[in-house]
Amino acid sequence: MYDGSTRLFFTLGQPASIIRIPRVMAPVFSAIGLNAVWLAMDVAPADLGRVLDGLRRVGNLGGLTITMPHKQAVLGLADRVSDLARASGAANLLRFEADGSITVDVADGIGFVRGLEARGFAPKGRSAFLLGTGGVGSAIAAALCAAGVTRLVVGEHDDARAEACLARLASFYPGVTLERADRPPSDIDVAINATPCGLKQTDPLPFDPAALLPGTFVAEVIMSPPVTRLLASARELGFSTSVGRDMLDHQISLYLDFFGYAHDPAAVIAALPREATERGA
Amino acid sequence: MYDGSTRLFFTLGQPASIIRIPRVMAPVFSAIGLNAVWLAMDVAPADLGRVLDGLRRVGNLGGLTITMPHKQAVLGLADRVSDLARASGAANLLRFEADGSITVDVADGIGFVRGLEARGFAPKGRSAFLLGTGGVGSAIAAALCAAGVTRLVVGEHDDARAEACLARLASFYPGVTLERADRPPSDIDVAINATPCGLKQTDPLPFDPAALLPGTFVAEVIMSPPVTRLLASARELGFSTSVGRDMLDHQISLYLDFFGYAHDPAAVIAALPREATERGA
Repeated sequence: MYDGSTRLFFTLGQPASIIRIPRVMAPVFSAIGLNAVWLAMDVAPADLGRVLDGLRRVGNLGGLTITMPHKQAVLGLADRVSDLARASGAANLLRFEADGSITVDVADGIGFVRGLEARGFAPKGRSAFLLGTGGVGSAIAAALCAAGVTRLVVGEHDDARAEACLARLASFYPGVTLERADRPPSDIDVAINATPCGLKQTDPLPFDPAALLPGTFVAEVIMSPPVTRLLASARELGFSTSVGRDMLDHQISLYLDFFGYAHDPAAVIAALPREATERGA
Repeated sequence: MYDGSTRLFFTLGQPASIIRIPRVMAPVFSAIGLNAVWLAMDVAPADLGRVLDGLRRVGNLGGLTITMPHKQAVLGLADRVSDLARASGAANLLRFEADGSITVDVADGIGFVRGLEARGFAPKGRSAFLLGTGGVGSAIAAALCAAGVTRLVVGEHDDARAEACLARLASFYPGVTLERADRPPSDIDVAINATPCGLKQTDPLPFDPAALLPGTFVAEVIMSPPVTRLLASARELGFSTSVGRDMLDHQISLYLDFFGYAHDPAAVIAALPREATERGA
């Protein structure tokens, strides 16, 4: 039950109707004992700056996240951008500092990497194939490099997008071998789908796990269905997998860290509603 | 349970912690089947304009109310001010029109008058004594005049405030006889306390109901305690009364009307939580 002291968290995006985080956060705030609510705000691209300028002045603001279509544009509105957000080309976390200035960071990629680690895959010194360099894909690419992969192969049908992603990575992580390929090389350590392919039951496989060597790790960003055809096929072939939901599980803790709310990460994961499996939370 | 389609209503004030409407509205929205949430925003006086400019651009904004200390200042930020708000010298309802312009109105006074009427007192052609011409008192004074009282006696220790209130009333309701007095004349039809006197159990009576003639109606704006010493004394003397809560009961429907949400007023009153009796909701 909310009252006048409730802290307000918002996710700014458009359309807001697809934002899933309000359902996700209610039980989390309850579990960590924070009188707070997380809601979606429908904001058009042209209005982002003015809405932020208003929210900056709300005394009981708890924190903001930024989603489509603002994840790239918000970099230009920030006073401080983390290296990971620069390398990702996008940010999803926004904080007003005491002086009113804006700091942005990105949690999508680290959440994903933490999910991999929780499933037993440590990226350091390994090679990765990543299909899709859109918003989430680019963030995962940067986080994989930051986590120490030595070789990253990206699959992306849009040349301009692929080149922009690779240029950012080359600039921030010069020690990583960067390549492009349409499908995972057979000697890769982890193969990741970061495209929407698999949201629909009728979608083809984004890549064929049967072409991978035994011991390859297969991961996915799609949360609905909870186990995509890709993951089901990979499991049948005996591969270890990380599901889309793993990314969300580990991301919420990063959000709370960024906004400065002390919490037990395990309690957060335990509180997350199991039915909130949609992509885009 | 909120989601990305939830409509957002806010009350802007400072300190926000004393704003009670979040607790009041959750069951109301549930009763009228609206996917909506009402929260308090803590906004400093200097920031009101910029916060409004941001909220104007939020696509899923449901509506705004304005409370202390902004009720007077908001008149200067509005493009359209209702006559009742002008006569009250304050507004508490704010709506962005399709072209982005701001319309403000005031519900405090009408809510109070509807509460009187629901208790059997019709102001038309009657006389009223009103103690206190602060924000709520001024709004009640204007609403009583708009509802057709022929004589209004105001009690107010602050001369400047009293004169400003009477000047506004004289301008908008020239047919009403306006007077000042420290206590209710014995021949008055309704005597109203619109001061905070009575919030504390140790407060003196704001005026002595024993000095009133039989048949006088006694009313109160204080919601906590639900029955003040004034009302208890009046009831012991056999007077009919209206409690502070009556104002809230009838105000919420006015809010929803102003924002254009169709509803059954009786269902709204039935849904209002009975424990939410604090003044200032």
